Amino acid sequence: NRHEWVAAASLTVGAAAIGYLAYKTLYSKDKGSKLLVNLDIQKDNPKVVHAFDIEDLGDKAVYCRCWRSKRFPMCDGSHTKHNDETGDNVGPLIIKKREA
Amino acid sequence: NRHEWVAAASLTVGAAAIGYLAYKTLYSKDKGSKLLVNLDIQKDNPKVVHAFDIEDLGDKAVYCRCWRSKRFPMCDGSHTKHNDETGDNVGPLIIKKREA
Repeated sequence: NRHEWVAAASLTVGAAAIGYLAYKTLYSKDKGSKLLVNLDIQKDNPKVVHAFDIEDLGDKAVYCRCWRSKRFPMCDGSHTKHNDETGDNVGPLIIKKREA
Repeated sequence: NRHEWVAAASLTVGAAAIGYLAYKTLYSKDKGSKLLVNLDIQKDNPKVVHAFDIEDLGDKAVYCRCWRSKRFPMCDGSHTKHNDETGDNVGPLIIKKREA
């Protein structure tokens, strides 16, 4: 009768939803490799590459590697906030004169 | 009776599961900022920073900014595979002599 029908239908829906949920949590571990590194810098550019001539460098240049800097490609310390928020451990690249 | 009870119970479970699923998909858009940039380089190091002296640089040095290079901190082209797999657009940092 109608009752049984409703019970069967919602039971299936419930089971399917929970099954899907369990599947997603169990098999989401390789999702790591699907993560974007750069969220919003020059997204219209297919590959964001920067080149600098050594002759133009001052005593010390700190380059961003976390892609969160507002002064990208230079570091502005944004990696600290990123690392705190995500538990990541990224930091910049420093190119400097030996004594600097 | 028992039938009604079973129908009500599974209906709630189904609704709760679907509600949770809808919530997660709708509100996961800011998850972007939760993403890790560095998945497996020196994860025991709280902040991975590299420094090089200009005097030690050759004509050209290409530094990785995608954190997937097997030769990190140097670039080994891994950004291409990363960009293809994720639709990202990251690329390296090049420090070179003017003529190089």
